[in-house]
Amino acid sequence: ANSTMTALGTTVFEVMSALAREHKSVNLGQGFPDDKGPEEVRAAAADFLLNGHNQYPPMMGIPELRQAVAEHAKRFQGLDIDWQSEVLVTSGATEALGDCLFGLIEPGDEVVLIEPLYDSYLPMVRRAGGVPKLVRLEPPHWRLPREQLAAAFGPKTKLILFNTPMNPCSKVFDREELSFIAGLCQQHDVYAICDEVYEHIIFDDRRHISMMTLPGMRDRTVRIGSAGKSFSLTGWKVGYVTAAPELMKAIAKTHQFMTFTTPPNLQWGAATGLRLGDGYFSNLAADMQRKRDRLATALAEIGFDVLPAHGTYFVTADFRPLGFNGTDEEFCRHITVEAGVTAVPVSAFYQSQEAPRYFARFCFCKDDSTLDSAIARLRAHF
Amino acid sequence: ANSTMTALGTTVFEVMSALAREHKSVNLGQGFPDDKGPEEVRAAAADFLLNGHNQYPPMMGIPELRQAVAEHAKRFQGLDIDWQSEVLVTSGATEALGDCLFGLIEPGDEVVLIEPLYDSYLPMVRRAGGVPKLVRLEPPHWRLPREQLAAAFGPKTKLILFNTPMNPCSKVFDREELSFIAGLCQQHDVYAICDEVYEHIIFDDRRHISMMTLPGMRDRTVRIGSAGKSFSLTGWKVGYVTAAPELMKAIAKTHQFMTFTTPPNLQWGAATGLRLGDGYFSNLAADMQRKRDRLATALAEIGFDVLPAHGTYFVTADFRPLGFNGTDEEFCRHITVEAGVTAVPVSAFYQSQEAPRYFARFCFCKDDSTLDSAIARLRAHF
Ligand SMILES: CSCCC(=O)C(=O)O
Ligand SMILES: CSCCC(=O)C(=O)O
Repeated sequence: ANSTMTALGTTVFEVMSALAREHKSVNLGQGFPDDKGPEEVRAAAADFLLNGHNQYPPMMGIPELRQAVAEHAKRFQGLDIDWQSEVLVTSGATEALGDCLFGLIEPGDEVVLIEPLYDSYLPMVRRAGGVPKLVRLEPPHWRLPREQLAAAFGPKTKLILFNTPMNPCSKVFDREELSFIAGLCQQHDVYAICDEVYEHIIFDDRRHISMMTLPGMRDRTVRIGSAGKSFSLTGWKVGYVTAAPELMKAIAKTHQFMTFTTPPNLQWGAATGLRLGDGYFSNLAADMQRKRDRLATALAEIGFDVLPAHGTYFVTADFRPLGFNGTDEEFCRHITVEAGVTAVPVSAFYQSQEAPRYFARFCFCKDDSTLDSAIARLRAHF
Repeated sequence: ANSTMTALGTTVFEVMSALAREHKSVNLGQGFPDDKGPEEVRAAAADFLLNGHNQYPPMMGIPELRQAVAEHAKRFQGLDIDWQSEVLVTSGATEALGDCLFGLIEPGDEVVLIEPLYDSYLPMVRRAGGVPKLVRLEPPHWRLPREQLAAAFGPKTKLILFNTPMNPCSKVFDREELSFIAGLCQQHDVYAICDEVYEHIIFDDRRHISMMTLPGMRDRTVRIGSAGKSFSLTGWKVGYVTAAPELMKAIAKTHQFMTFTTPPNLQWGAATGLRLGDGYFSNLAADMQRKRDRLATALAEIGFDVLPAHGTYFVTADFRPLGFNGTDEEFCRHITVEAGVTAVPVSAFYQSQEAPRYFARFCFCKDDSTLDSAIARLRAHF
């Protein structure tokens, strides 16, 4: 069997969700909402199952969704996207990422990555033949270490891959940071693959800035979006890639053999979602912000040292003030088994041995009653 | 960009379907049924969208579908499968294939393939780092060339990948042929990846034999199945992999980063389908056989030399008796533009230059009215 793949453990989300099921704990580990997602989006997809054409759609996606992706980029980022040559629908952002990495990396190419890392990045870069160059953000500020980042780029660099808003540390890259990265990309003639699945889950009047809008980056950026995240339907596995035509060619050729296409009824539902009014998207962010505040405030009261969370479904908390003596993995198992609440250890998002080992990531995209029950259990335990 | 992927053309199915749309021809190219699929299967999936949990299901698939896959293997192949360690749900058989190849191949491993080749096999083997060893079947009998096949196996061989029933040439491997391949697999300590998506689309009282049922092959066979094909819902992109636990580990670890998981509502629908009574599956085969006969008889009357079709959605026909002077690609374009009927050139399924260039593959999984209209157009033209 392939040594890169067999060397891997099972993804931390799956491991912790299984542990949560086993111990009937409140699962604030894996990021999925309690919310059922917009009724009209689900109804559109259900109606299509009964009355639509449930056979292979075009390999690039149904025109309605590709057009909606382009319109949405115009509405929220002011981008002019040609849906016919620049938009691809994928079976989730995970597949989108695979399409980009297997489509763009030539074995031996270097790929710049930023730790903490979303869990599929490193194995997929490696399996695609890429040589990872890791740059590490340090808590609690997660500031971009500019010198180290610049040093990670070189003549063999093919691309940088990162997410903003950033999972797991809830950082939102600001214009200055993006400009710095953009400068390096241009200086070294490198692509930026930007995982923007949390583009609408962003707080405190911050606005998501797509790398694609930065000067000089229009044609060297690949944007990845997700209907699962934007419509609270993580099981749908509908993602989309936006990239200039030349880049798109290599990505689409990979997609055609990775999954070929994505269920048309869910594409139809996602198109309905992307066309919802601005109110839907601002409510989504406001609602998530309220949930963040509910959980973060309570965690602080319990005694955690809670880090700022500017976007995503997650808040990270330092558990050392509680007097827990052990690693983050031990802590997350401990609260699952003993308190009945599950979180994810942040060191799972690091490759380097120097990972911080005293942070747990808590998911807040849950009903108030779920959050309150987790809070009550933690309060009772600590 | 990656040179393996950019060197590829767009898949022949997509190219011909686009040409068919452009010329408003009757599309007998890409294989997808006119049938809408069983009402109860679609209704189960639609109901789940409205009332179920549309968030990430377990990475391996929902228990109901994994159990149904195991029961189905027992019912139709007499196999005892442990659903918890031996069944994985994927986003279509295409993803399943990618999971197997990226999970099992170590760069430099040799992979035995049989031409004519389903279109994703060769690029995915190459992109996974495998070295393809091609063995060619010759029309009109498509017999297994035993000596050449034996010569293709060697000390570096990791696996053989093939499909039965075989797309595009509609061959169904018999027990003797499978035994011969099984012998080579055991002699060389090699895996067999068997794409069995057409397991139920099989004619003239033949029965599908899974390689996994052959002596010595239980634990070295990987079976790939498809709800799209078994329930006439090709757009659903729900596939499943069955393999012994050790093999499954490497495949599942790849799956978790290729798509992670598959929409739970479609999994639920597929589980409903796999539990339909025997009558559903025998009707499906009988119905397709009737359609095969309708199309094959008419093509023969028109003057094609029609090859036997023992399974799949397709029948292959030699167009030389019609006096057409040109390659199969030219023929398929010609009938699309001039007669308003689209087929797929069989040489597209070959890598070797020695591909036969006088066969067109016609898809018959269509309404009688669609078939009749294609037949009438071809009759009028030739
Ligand atoms: C692919 S399951 C993980 C969900 C998620 O994005 C997260 O919990 O970080
Ligand atoms: C993946 S689209 C091709 C459909 C098919 O299996 C075929 O036409 O052979």
